[in-house]
Amino acid sequence: MCKLAVIALGGNALLRGNQSGTIDEQEQNTTDTLENLIFLLEEGYNLVVTHGNGPQVGNILMRNDAGEQIYDIPQMPLDICVADSQGGIGYMIERMMHNVLKKHNIKREIVTLVTMVEVDKSDPAFENPTKRVGRIYNKEQSGKLAKDKGWEFREEVKVKEGWRRVVPSPQPVSILNYKVVETMARSGTIVIASGGGGIPVYYDENGNVRPAEAVIDKDLAGSLLASSVGADEFYILTDVSYVYINFNKPDQQVVEFLNLADTRKYLAEGMFAEGSMAPKIRACMQFIEKGGEMSVITEAFKLADKKFGTKITMEYED
Amino acid sequence: MCKLAVIALGGNALLRGNQSGTIDEQEQNTTDTLENLIFLLEEGYNLVVTHGNGPQVGNILMRNDAGEQIYDIPQMPLDICVADSQGGIGYMIERMMHNVLKKHNIKREIVTLVTMVEVDKSDPAFENPTKRVGRIYNKEQSGKLAKDKGWEFREEVKVKEGWRRVVPSPQPVSILNYKVVETMARSGTIVIASGGGGIPVYYDENGNVRPAEAVIDKDLAGSLLASSVGADEFYILTDVSYVYINFNKPDQQVVEFLNLADTRKYLAEGMFAEGSMAPKIRACMQFIEKGGEMSVITEAFKLADKKFGTKITMEYED
Repeated sequence: MCKLAVIALGGNALLRGNQSGTIDEQEQNTTDTLENLIFLLEEGYNLVVTHGNGPQVGNILMRNDAGEQIYDIPQMPLDICVADSQGGIGYMIERMMHNVLKKHNIKREIVTLVTMVEVDKSDPAFENPTKRVGRIYNKEQSGKLAKDKGWEFREEVKVKEGWRRVVPSPQPVSILNYKVVETMARSGTIVIASGGGGIPVYYDENGNVRPAEAVIDKDLAGSLLASSVGADEFYILTDVSYVYINFNKPDQQVVEFLNLADTRKYLAEGMFAEGSMAPKIRACMQFIEKGGEMSVITEAFKLADKKFGTKITMEYED
Repeated sequence: MCKLAVIALGGNALLRGNQSGTIDEQEQNTTDTLENLIFLLEEGYNLVVTHGNGPQVGNILMRNDAGEQIYDIPQMPLDICVADSQGGIGYMIERMMHNVLKKHNIKREIVTLVTMVEVDKSDPAFENPTKRVGRIYNKEQSGKLAKDKGWEFREEVKVKEGWRRVVPSPQPVSILNYKVVETMARSGTIVIASGGGGIPVYYDENGNVRPAEAVIDKDLAGSLLASSVGADEFYILTDVSYVYINFNKPDQQVVEFLNLADTRKYLAEGMFAEGSMAPKIRACMQFIEKGGEMSVITEAFKLADKKFGTKITMEYED
């Protein structure tokens, strides 16, 4: 059976920090990233691609705000905005993938699935919203929105009178369509799924699927997707070529190989920054704990050069 | 083999003319519409669902305009806006379908595919853009946008100084992922695909897939999808229970059954209004011409009551 890899595109894989977010910039970055997946296809891998949506869904939320202000168009809730972003980004990746495959004379079907991801309404994250989304408001605006829409706000640092909506970031529990993703991927189709961490939903007491106003970490959702489809390898493509220990300290050190026990130890010692590398490390560890062979964290444009990247496995190779 | 039906949801299936477009309205209409598909599932049909996106993509375009005005966020091109709408609407239909199936104790996988549809760049529609999209501008604004973005504009009637962007509405040539749609649908999965007529793309001289700034008629795309997957039946759900001949004339007459020859004759005689019933009739005829058994035009909330609806077949039944 062919090996199956799940690739999580994030950070600068789609949009670099210094870019404004035009479609031309996004398409070029995406193409450069996808070029780095070709070697996997040439080695016979089946592929599932997932991706972040931070800048894109941020813009969609801002446009919803602006559309209401100028044209009185009803704002869509967060779940619809995430779903919109899955459509737009997924299509862009799919079309760029068509063209990259054409260049390399590789024939594969490519599909993009809109994906719901189940969360648990009793997840403690719902009591403590931390994920900042949308635009910055002043105190009066944020107060009115809190009253009108029930949104929660936190003060921004570094911004005078800056308040931003915060939403919960619960753990992903299940990927609703993972069986379809697995069937298609194992038949050779490249599947793009679970963008932006998936659209968060929960089952209510009657078994109905309801939207959760939340954002799921895309690497944790990607890891769950990888385990659910029985992937062999899980790749997180980001803006660094390696994971570091003692990052930004005199004894800073690149690590190329990590076993699960050492990774867990370094994480417990606070070697990886929360809000940055730590969630990626957790996503990689969860994949290995559930039976995956190898997790890799590397730079989006360097995946094809295997000398880069930190590889996490159950045991070190002999 | 189970029968396969393609259902095109349009008009008031998702949003009624007198509604403002809140998510609650859209969800309730969608649920009411999907209830009318249950009898097909109970008869053992496999289903592909496609849908319009007029009000939703109109709002997305307006929000893009507003977001640029207030926050200087780069506007996304039309193809991305259509893709966004496929994500949001597809997710909404998929989630409502989950809950309707739950109520009826029916177990099926449901997936939403982001779908590109090929058009021909030499289609004469590209020389004569007719489809109005986005907001109404005044003459000065439209002149600036025509210069800055290369958009074409037409004057609105009934509006003082009203100008609207027009884009081409070319014929759909092929559905890029129809094979995947067919495979999944025939395995019993309910597939939601080709929303808003699909994201229009074309193959350039190098075989690369490029976006076409255009809008494809959703019923024509739905008909092509139905033929491509070898569907037996094609349903267009709209806001009338029947097709009429001599509509709004003293001898107005409901038609419940039509054969292909009579349908073609009535169409040639101008019995069906352009911009309204005529494209739906053409979509139904094309499906029959390519070997489909039956096309049906009926009211979204009345499909389950088979006494409603105009049925178009190759020959009248004896």
